Amino acid sequence: MSKYLDSIDSPADLKRIPQSELPELAKEIRSALIRRLEAVGGHFGSNLGAVELEIALHYVFDSPRDKFVFDVSHQSYTHKVLTGRRGMVEPETYLDYSGFSAPEESVHDQFKVGHTSTSLSLACGLAKARDLTGGKGNVVAVIGDGSMSGGEAFEGLNNAAMLDSNMIILFNDNDMSIAPNQGGMYRNFAELRATKGTASNNFFTAMGLEYRFLESGNDLDALIQELRAVKDIDHPIVVHICTQKGLGSDWAQEHREEGHWVDPKGAEPSDEESPTKLNADFLLKKIQADPSVVVINAGTPGGLSLTPAWRAKAGKQFVDVGIAEEHAVAFTSGLARGGAKPVYLVSGSFAQRTYDQLMQDLALNRSAGVILVRGASIGTGDATHNGTYISSLENIVPNVRVFSPSSMEDEYAILDWAIDQQEGPVIINVPESATHGPQRFSTEDVERNRVVRMGRDVALMGYGNFQALAQEVATELEKCDIDATVIDPVFANDIDAELLQALKGDHRLVVTLEDGMLAGGFGSAVTAFYSADDMRVLNYGARREYLDRVDGEAMRKRYHLNPETIAQEIREVLER
Amino acid sequence: MSKYLDSIDSPADLKRIPQSELPELAKEIRSALIRRLEAVGGHFGSNLGAVELEIALHYVFDSPRDKFVFDVSHQSYTHKVLTGRRGMVEPETYLDYSGFSAPEESVHDQFKVGHTSTSLSLACGLAKARDLTGGKGNVVAVIGDGSMSGGEAFEGLNNAAMLDSNMIILFNDNDMSIAPNQGGMYRNFAELRATKGTASNNFFTAMGLEYRFLESGNDLDALIQELRAVKDIDHPIVVHICTQKGLGSDWAQEHREEGHWVDPKGAEPSDEESPTKLNADFLLKKIQADPSVVVINAGTPGGLSLTPAWRAKAGKQFVDVGIAEEHAVAFTSGLARGGAKPVYLVSGSFAQRTYDQLMQDLALNRSAGVILVRGASIGTGDATHNGTYISSLENIVPNVRVFSPSSMEDEYAILDWAIDQQEGPVIINVPESATHGPQRFSTEDVERNRVVRMGRDVALMGYGNFQALAQEVATELEKCDIDATVIDPVFANDIDAELLQALKGDHRLVVTLEDGMLAGGFGSAVTAFYSADDMRVLNYGARREYLDRVDGEAMRKRYHLNPETIAQEIREVLER
Repeated sequence: MSKYLDSIDSPADLKRIPQSELPELAKEIRSALIRRLEAVGGHFGSNLGAVELEIALHYVFDSPRDKFVFDVSHQSYTHKVLTGRRGMVEPETYLDYSGFSAPEESVHDQFKVGHTSTSLSLACGLAKARDLTGGKGNVVAVIGDGSMSGGEAFEGLNNAAMLDSNMIILFNDNDMSIAPNQGGMYRNFAELRATKGTASNNFFTAMGLEYRFLESGNDLDALIQELRAVKDIDHPIVVHICTQKGLGSDWAQEHREEGHWVDPKGAEPSDEESPTKLNADFLLKKIQADPSVVVINAGTPGGLSLTPAWRAKAGKQFVDVGIAEEHAVAFTSGLARGGAKPVYLVSGSFAQRTYDQLMQDLALNRSAGVILVRGASIGTGDATHNGTYISSLENIVPNVRVFSPSSMEDEYAILDWAIDQQEGPVIINVPESATHGPQRFSTEDVERNRVVRMGRDVALMGYGNFQALAQEVATELEKCDIDATVIDPVFANDIDAELLQALKGDHRLVVTLEDGMLAGGFGSAVTAFYSADDMRVLNYGARREYLDRVDGEAMRKRYHLNPETIAQEIREVLER
Repeated sequence: MSKYLDSIDSPADLKRIPQSELPELAKEIRSALIRRLEAVGGHFGSNLGAVELEIALHYVFDSPRDKFVFDVSHQSYTHKVLTGRRGMVEPETYLDYSGFSAPEESVHDQFKVGHTSTSLSLACGLAKARDLTGGKGNVVAVIGDGSMSGGEAFEGLNNAAMLDSNMIILFNDNDMSIAPNQGGMYRNFAELRATKGTASNNFFTAMGLEYRFLESGNDLDALIQELRAVKDIDHPIVVHICTQKGLGSDWAQEHREEGHWVDPKGAEPSDEESPTKLNADFLLKKIQADPSVVVINAGTPGGLSLTPAWRAKAGKQFVDVGIAEEHAVAFTSGLARGGAKPVYLVSGSFAQRTYDQLMQDLALNRSAGVILVRGASIGTGDATHNGTYISSLENIVPNVRVFSPSSMEDEYAILDWAIDQQEGPVIINVPESATHGPQRFSTEDVERNRVVRMGRDVALMGYGNFQALAQEVATELEKCDIDATVIDPVFANDIDAELLQALKGDHRLVVTLEDGMLAGGFGSAVTAFYSADDMRVLNYGARREYLDRVDGEAMRKRYHLNPETIAQEIREVLER
């Protein structure tokens, strides 16, 4: 039973609580958040640190007349709880809400956001629109120190300084990105913290912005006073607010990196056999054997099994560039050109941030960098972190060779080859699970598709994670006495014309199965190959649409991804 | 006849010239550059301003042991002339060289570069590779002030500061981007220039970098002294060098924006009827009629006919965000969400920089911003500025509606509708030439393809710029008594299933023609629609490969884009 939290259905209810009682409310919210986070997981340390900041925001400002933009939304839970979504911290409805800001849930959320460093640009747009349309109200961006290293944030800051009207940038500095911060800028933030904002060297004023400093960013009275001082200001301003990441949890405060995110209670303990863990082990061996091998990551090492212990062992042969994906790809290109052997590890959804860097900085230069993409698969999580869309993007970059191994054995073999080859960039989509199987990839002929079993009439091409599905479909077809050919493409961004040509002999149907979007996908290249022939083709994969927390079963139904359904549809085509 | 220039076949020859004679060489190079630029066009003001800087670079450093990375290469001509490519300024061979840095031409060029803001990240890679492989030598990045506003440059700067070894950043500040600089950072650069680098507010030191200042960046003795002072330094350093954009040309110094680039002598004067000019006129009318309409551009207004006079008329309803494409897209999303009506103008090749911003900031939020893409077509220029690849990228973003009008009449109609609609983002590929024709687009049913003429057997779907080609093919086919259907898709990123279904009745072949890449293109969606049917499909467009200065005739041959060839190939399929 909470004294205050239960009474809050909107910011108006919050404003009725006496200021002196707000610390009690903060305590209630923090406890509720910890209960929720321990039960169902989520962004932990970042949300715990910002409880007071968001109470103060809603206490001082008037959302939605005043508009808040939360960068990456890793700190938006308290805001959500205060804006009619108390269900987020009530056990029956924990999972009814997105963990990110979501306009479809509330008018108090301006944007659906889950990638970092976008808040300042989005807020600039809101501010300019307000000025053009004669609107009123404050525009407030809340951005953490970790997000500041992303180029988009910098572009936003540079442009915010040119705005001649209200825009308030709350720089929530907990001295921590997801992992430790990286980059020269952070020395300045440390200097500003150490001098209580008085250092003459000041990144924000150098960017042309007015600057204020608040040391006690978890003190409600101080926050309220500070926010009142800047409310309705007529020009852009940065308020540097120091907060404690993980406040309220001793564990999260002691484990600032691990405490950024927690898994749900009872979740399987992190698998020793996870593909990212296996890759990390493999890469460490490569590092130890060859001083020119270097592993790069952009601010998310933990999620890729590059633990602090791993990083200590890799030493100078690991570089975390901070949240700066564009830099990571161009840096990879420079490393390859300079004679090193770079391997850049990235999650599929974040790899999207660097299409032009793939095109111009890396592939146009045929730099022999390796990119290891985790989670390039039809995702069941938030639309903001969905790996469905990355493989289509990989497929349209010239000069790049893309592989989607279906087993760890193939993945190791490809990675081993890719690191040492000097011909050009290689992208490897990491298998979703640590499936083991025979090695099909061969350095003799890297661009060949592999025939797993030769049948007739119908050929099933199961790409990457969907090789297993292809084999299940073959088993289904056997029940109807259809002896299907099964192919593991392995090499994935171009067709194996010789094999596809050969299939014309005694096959009438080719079926492609890919764990990604159909538009621009692997299957579309196969279809194009046969477009002027008699060969029929069926493509299975995801439609071009955002997938936001669609569960696995619903997804299989939506895209006809069950072996029985596919076998049935194949029979229908064959019988036509 | 030049006294010194003709003797230079490599940097070693340069080093033999007495330092006191270098100003004479600079004069010779500058005259030669002006002759070349006036004859065949190119980046004018930027190259003229950097003549001394690049002479000094090669005089002091030892390329290729010391490695230079020129940001965007707008200033690399003198470097090219000094490294065995004097032919660049000799009339017979003017066009034998790329206007950008190009490793295929010389070991002195590290990367093929034509997009801005990448040099620092690429140079970080070279430096780190040197350190890992036990190499020696300086790594020198040359970056102009205009390029500094791009997020990738900022990410590179932030990471450069973490390098504990040699890296020299020559910040070539001519107080000008392509157009005037935009953003708060530039106030600091002005302050630094005004105080000869002594202002306590200093962007570079705030980024954690050592800083030096050189006022006389066109004085060879001063430059040589400064570069000698930093040569072989053991940590990263920024040298802020003030140069005169367009030095040596009164015209370019007076017209700093127009003087950034010159067209070849005898080129057609800028067409009053160019699509960008017509769009600028159209948008100005919209701006004048509706105070919530706002036009955005990222640092290249001139190339999009947003002249200084136009900008003065648009007033606050035009925003140049500087070279900051990511910000531009997110800003567009914010503007739309805030109730304004944003239209972002961008060239196809630069639109590539913002895939994730299209995906996450704009489309996921269904923000009703309009993006007007110029030059989305198979390009005959440099690979770095080629619009071949953008339409495939447009096609894989969910929630976006993409249009490729084949006439200005359709384009106006679509733009007019798109600006006012509130449903979601719209991308319009601007026609390559100001073709006039009947308006086919209708607000009644925006996603319908349009039948231009109904025939039988074969249907020609000419997308955007290739609608004219479709009509030419139809004319060719008529000669053989084939009465082809011609379709203008207009709406371009999804198929018109009803129409495609209807074609099955009395058509055996559908031919798609698109002015872009086939992989992930419009045609691939049509092919996919018919993949399990008897309908045959032929797709015409560009293969997935880089196109670097391939002329129009060679391109048509390479991709079979002549009406006669296509008609012949159609007959072959029909006769099978």
